[in-house]
Amino acid sequence: MNYSSRLLENAVDEFARLPGIGPKTALRLALHLLRQEEADVKRFSESVLKLRTDIKYCTECGNLSDDQLCPVCLSEKRDRGLICVVEDTRDVMAIENTSQYYGLYHVLGGLISPMNGIGPSDLRIDMLIKRVKESGIKEVILALSATMEGDTTIFYIYKKLKVFDITLTTIAKGISFGGELEYVDEVTLGRSILSRVPYENSLFK
Amino acid sequence: MNYSSRLLENAVDEFARLPGIGPKTALRLALHLLRQEEADVKRFSESVLKLRTDIKYCTECGNLSDDQLCPVCLSEKRDRGLICVVEDTRDVMAIENTSQYYGLYHVLGGLISPMNGIGPSDLRIDMLIKRVKESGIKEVILALSATMEGDTTIFYIYKKLKVFDITLTTIAKGISFGGELEYVDEVTLGRSILSRVPYENSLFK
Repeated sequence: MNYSSRLLENAVDEFARLPGIGPKTALRLALHLLRQEEADVKRFSESVLKLRTDIKYCTECGNLSDDQLCPVCLSEKRDRGLICVVEDTRDVMAIENTSQYYGLYHVLGGLISPMNGIGPSDLRIDMLIKRVKESGIKEVILALSATMEGDTTIFYIYKKLKVFDITLTTIAKGISFGGELEYVDEVTLGRSILSRVPYENSLFK
Repeated sequence: MNYSSRLLENAVDEFARLPGIGPKTALRLALHLLRQEEADVKRFSESVLKLRTDIKYCTECGNLSDDQLCPVCLSEKRDRGLICVVEDTRDVMAIENTSQYYGLYHVLGGLISPMNGIGPSDLRIDMLIKRVKESGIKEVILALSATMEGDTTIFYIYKKLKVFDITLTTIAKGISFGGELEYVDEVTLGRSILSRVPYENSLFK
């Protein structure tokens, strides 16, 4: 590309480094910001930098937080005997959006993935064991992705936690609610038949 | 969305304000930057702000520039008797990428569009007339989009410039090179038949 300005080129290069943003989109974004008020661009620029410099990780659950403890861990309304183990902060947000969960979280920060060089020691698994050992936890829900990495991580955590007197559960897998049977993939459909449940149990009372 | 951190929420909101970026993409970008080195995020943040605060517009052609005059206007290799009128800096970049043009540019900063409240006085048309009057221009190429707004703007400029002793041209319109006839839209195909050219003229010697 022929840029008439090095400042423009720098900004476009920086945008193009972001995931899913190619050079054309990067140019569009840079030119868009150029047309905005200086105060707006300053606010954009500062919010991004502040996010990186000022953010903290909750010392209890490992979720992103503005303070030492995140709002969930601070809340007195949550069930302190229940921990939901998730991969990252996006999963916490997804589960919070359902309004169906009232316990605490534990953010691992990734999944065990030998292919990508991520082992158990790179994740917050030791801290999970410590929490289970010390905080009177009654149930640990393993809400990890239904992938090879997710299953590996679940199995690893299961082996570490089965010595404790707690209930270990994983989230239910099967066909989506509202989904049409003919569009469900074969693996999901096959497994949902194998792990069929008595009709009475599938009703939400 | 339930954000565990206000810093994260601010950054996501700012990203989501950009064109073509929804809340999910904004969250992905914010979390991506969170995983980068602090120096990288700082460079991103600064390059965006600097673009807005430090950029100049070439006093001659109106293109984006780091200095008072842009590289094209400063270059001694360009033909100073030839001006190509374009809508914005993206068009300059597109034409420069062809390596087929060796004259100067004039960036209008938009097109006449009564629907959007943009009149001739909002564009750099007066400065174009001044350049034609004072700088010994021989030819003005009107390289504007083949839209209603583009045609209106071309007609307006044509009326203003026809009193001067210069050649006024527009870029050729017709089917794309390498395009298959059956996929060309009807208007383009119809007009390309009406404005057919002698075969000898269509050869690039």
